[in-house]
Amino acid sequence: MAEVPPVLVNFKAYSEAVGDRALSLARAAEKVSEETGVTIGVCPSHVDLARVASEVDVPVFAQAVDAAEPGSRTGHVTPEMVREAGADGTLLNHSERRMLLEDLKDVCLACMNEGLTTVVCASDAVAARAAGALRPHAVAVEPPELIGTGTPVSKADPEVVEATVEAVKEVSEDTVVLCGAGITDGTDVKAAIELGADGVLVASGVVLADDPEEAMRDLVSGIP
Amino acid sequence: MAEVPPVLVNFKAYSEAVGDRALSLARAAEKVSEETGVTIGVCPSHVDLARVASEVDVPVFAQAVDAAEPGSRTGHVTPEMVREAGADGTLLNHSERRMLLEDLKDVCLACMNEGLTTVVCASDAVAARAAGALRPHAVAVEPPELIGTGTPVSKADPEVVEATVEAVKEVSEDTVVLCGAGITDGTDVKAAIELGADGVLVASGVVLADDPEEAMRDLVSGIP
Amino acid sequence: MAEVPPVLVNFKAYSEAVGDRALSLARAAEKVSEETGVTIGVCPSHVDLARVASEVDVPVFAQAVDAAEPGSRTGHVTPEMVREAGADGTLLNHSERRMLLEDLKDVCLACMNEGLTTVVCASDAVAARAAGALRPHAVAVEPPELIGTGTPVSKADPEVVEATVEAVKEVSEDTVVLCGAGITDGTDVKAAIELGADGVLVASGVVLADDPEEAMRDLVSGIP
Amino acid sequence: MAEVPPVLVNFKAYSEAVGDRALSLARAAEKVSEETGVTIGVCPSHVDLARVASEVDVPVFAQAVDAAEPGSRTGHVTPEMVREAGADGTLLNHSERRMLLEDLKDVCLACMNEGLTTVVCASDAVAARAAGALRPHAVAVEPPELIGTGTPVSKADPEVVEATVEAVKEVSEDTVVLCGAGITDGTDVKAAIELGADGVLVASGVVLADDPEEAMRDLVSGIP
Repeated sequence: MAEVPPVLVNFKAYSEAVGDRALSLARAAEKVSEETGVTIGVCPSHVDLARVASEVDVPVFAQAVDAAEPGSRTGHVTPEMVREAGADGTLLNHSERRMLLEDLKDVCLACMNEGLTTVVCASDAVAARAAGALRPHAVAVEPPELIGTGTPVSKADPEVVEATVEAVKEVSEDTVVLCGAGITDGTDVKAAIELGADGVLVASGVVLADDPEEAMRDLVSGIP
Repeated sequence: MAEVPPVLVNFKAYSEAVGDRALSLARAAEKVSEETGVTIGVCPSHVDLARVASEVDVPVFAQAVDAAEPGSRTGHVTPEMVREAGADGTLLNHSERRMLLEDLKDVCLACMNEGLTTVVCASDAVAARAAGALRPHAVAVEPPELIGTGTPVSKADPEVVEATVEAVKEVSEDTVVLCGAGITDGTDVKAAIELGADGVLVASGVVLADDPEEAMRDLVSGIP
Repeated sequence: MAEVPPVLVNFKAYSEAVGDRALSLARAAEKVSEETGVTIGVCPSHVDLARVASEVDVPVFAQAVDAAEPGSRTGHVTPEMVREAGADGTLLNHSERRMLLEDLKDVCLACMNEGLTTVVCASDAVAARAAGALRPHAVAVEPPELIGTGTPVSKADPEVVEATVEAVKEVSEDTVVLCGAGITDGTDVKAAIELGADGVLVASGVVLADDPEEAMRDLVSGIP
Repeated sequence: MAEVPPVLVNFKAYSEAVGDRALSLARAAEKVSEETGVTIGVCPSHVDLARVASEVDVPVFAQAVDAAEPGSRTGHVTPEMVREAGADGTLLNHSERRMLLEDLKDVCLACMNEGLTTVVCASDAVAARAAGALRPHAVAVEPPELIGTGTPVSKADPEVVEATVEAVKEVSEDTVVLCGAGITDGTDVKAAIELGADGVLVASGVVLADDPEEAMRDLVSGIP
């Protein structure tokens, strides 16, 4: 099973990160990882997952999987499918794709059985404690009101990062904590790490940057 | 705020427990409570909540509330509404009405602010630990496959009751544990209590009984 | 079965329209109806439905019902429940409580079987045509972007009203058309009727008015 | 834009149709199409879509797309994505992935704008009339209770096929009708066509067959 990368780039459904652009972004992540020795994971869309995983040497995470067993489940993406496509892990419960508590529980277990690394998103420390109680590999705290703003959570709401780290460790010692929302540069990353986070989850800060490769280089500079 | 009653009867959407029949059932609960000194709470439908709460002297719980603030939320039932209707608390996340983890978190907090007692349902010990991490007043563990079967969870799957009690206490010492699914008589209740549960959540065992009053009397006999 | 009232007031989940305030609003509607001879229907929350229906003599509509048959459906509100509570009909598919197409189909049929008048909301003419194809008693077109703005659909987007009337009549001759979103006075109502609507669905324009009774009197002045 | 193929094979989330097995199944479809001159379309999972579309020469349909515009929509699959992956069209509203009426309306329009062929599933003639009112390229009627049974809808419930054809044509002359559920051989296909359907939607009858290629050859024999 893959470690949780200290920098995880979520491609979302941005046109800038679909098809060939997904591949380019992943290659830029690979290049910066090689240069700096800091692992950068990428989260392409379901549709681009297999191609990115087969052509680029970085940890690849799905953006979501469904709480569906293989079988008669039209339109669902199972843990089995993403593993077979070469994914190392998956985001779960992103604020743009929230899950039922019970489904989240089922899917964490199913991912574990498939050897997939699980990163469960949560909006605050209380949700993070509940997410942590499912014993995923990581909890990523992202206050939804900061997503896409460029105002980093580590600056706008440092307490939420500290409270999340405390809440998660209380219920699941081995779960690491990422923080996201508004993260755009190395200073933000450094601040997040100093607040107790193990890494960051970023999206628009890289995907919509004029120079995504340079943006990743900057982010990585904040990792000690 | 109301204590969590040791016996909580969920009327669901049974025709046998709508309108005037809801009132009769609640009166039977009141009578058995008075006779025995064991508090029996009732969970009528949204539509019958106000009438039952105003006419009968038992703890009244909603079957669900929505994670909606007062305002422009057509068709939603807010914590404020059920409190104003006279409810003492509410079930949340019943297997027939599962909630998003984030909504469940928001609604637990909103209920607390309204002085409503929260009973969060969960399918097993892992879900119960996540539910417990939200610090509700009670977690009710109900393996969905046993609901409505007449085979009590305390007999079919005693481990799930014990594991739930342990998991919940681990994350929230003050949260009590109910158990449900297949409970029909005092023996089942007694077994549940011996496994560490603080009470039971029942539905068809009372609502569909030939003599619901007698069924409640029998259930209550299992409370020490 | 009740006719579709030409003015239907949706109480939503506004604090101003819960409990005793729901009753006062419904009484104001009753008073204006009696004075003017124009029927005003009211849509209280699930929790206030029974009390409003038993104490006030106006058509009472639920804000929503679930596509659930009576039985083991915790937290759901069935057509049977609202009829037994005294409702004459129900809104369905409001923009704040959208439904699956298949559930909407099932629930329209179930409401018909219970003798409930169905008012299906839709965001535009195409959705209205699909809604009309289910043959409800009324389709209410409400462009979501105008809800609560005070800018009436009849002024901001008159074409949507005309196109909806045409689309609905094309698939279901007997279905009437209401229009909503931003309606606050008699001028708006008059404009809606001139565009081919049979009536209006209003909420904040009445519920949040300084003087709801006066607001209803003004609205009704637009009915020919 | 692709025509609607007279035989459309839905791979669902069957393990038998994931990854390399998806490719093999699609190649078998290609072979039978070439042999017989009857077009067979395939619906692989999101994860296999791009690879099947690039390596096999048959019409490729997604199993679903989300009503999401490109952008900040983690875990969603947009019409743009599947088109860029090489899909010709998509299933929508399958009984295992039902959609909100409003989302279905939005996504039909978005697919049309991307040049994707839309096949909207419906459970019966009334739902099919509503689906047809959205003017998709095809409506596929599949009584959910027959899915996966091997009892063909054309035999178990011929009236539903006839009623659907009539209902759809009433609201959208150019929309074709497929029928599905329980279809396994050429006799079933022939019966469906005689009832007025333009083609069939099949899944387990092919995917779980001992010899899927032979199963497709048999199905195709029923096309006139």
